[in-house]
Amino acid sequence: MNKNVIRTALGILALSLTAVAQAQVSAEDMVKFRQSGYTFMNWNMGKIKAMAVDGAMPYNQDQVIAAANVVAATANSGMGALFSPETLNQTGWKQTRLQANFFDEQDKVRDIAVNFIQQANKLQEVAMNGDQQAVAAQFNEVVESCRACHQNYRAD
Amino acid sequence: MNKNVIRTALGILALSLTAVAQAQVSAEDMVKFRQSGYTFMNWNMGKIKAMAVDGAMPYNQDQVIAAANVVAATANSGMGALFSPETLNQTGWKQTRLQANFFDEQDKVRDIAVNFIQQANKLQEVAMNGDQQAVAAQFNEVVESCRACHQNYRAD
Repeated sequence: MNKNVIRTALGILALSLTAVAQAQVSAEDMVKFRQSGYTFMNWNMGKIKAMAVDGAMPYNQDQVIAAANVVAATANSGMGALFSPETLNQTGWKQTRLQANFFDEQDKVRDIAVNFIQQANKLQEVAMNGDQQAVAAQFNEVVESCRACHQNYRAD
Repeated sequence: MNKNVIRTALGILALSLTAVAQAQVSAEDMVKFRQSGYTFMNWNMGKIKAMAVDGAMPYNQDQVIAAANVVAATANSGMGALFSPETLNQTGWKQTRLQANFFDEQDKVRDIAVNFIQQANKLQEVAMNGDQQAVAAQFNEVVESCRACHQNYRAD
């Protein structure tokens, strides 16, 4: 897991390298892919919230694990490769809300990304081994790690 | 894993039940969520193809595993819950291509879905334990399992 975190951090830093490795992906598709990843993660976070936090659905550990697996797999998928400067102001499914300072603050971006991956991995572990209360608490940690990026680098 | 397959098969059959459990998700959002899941999976399948099949990118086992984890987690996420009859002709990110016969052939749909889940789980295993050639072969099995649904239930 630490290996994954380091690998992803390096991936985010090495934007120029990943851009070469993905030369065949257009800026439009990069935005579409990342919007898709976040939207599908949102569905799965919503299910965990409904089951573990709000009680809107009965707590079902198998479904919580399945949803947490999506969140962790998405976090570890190397999405840093989908953030290149040419994607600013691009439209994927809709216009991106990514702000230009994302590319000026790579140290801060890396810290936020590493924390998101760590919190998502921990959610996956807690889903497997913890109870509803522990899942609810870790769900909130993941939400906070998402917000850190939204508040700094996503337009309202 | 077999437990997962059975669970998902039951999930697909119990559409009315899952529709109740997700009463808060609009038809538009159901389509948006499933289009997002498939599109993000497509990005990850593309990476596996580039690394294992086409040789367009150097084979990197860690990245193949990360991509296969997304494919398997998506397959096991209970997406059957996002297919309700009210989503026919709906627009999510774009108009759905789902055809009405999907809801008339639930036995066949279940068999196709179960096979997709099994092939995606096997891709995850092969990514962990197999070589490039084995990954390429299993990648093609997953593609075939996707096609089975597209050819029967997705408009061109």
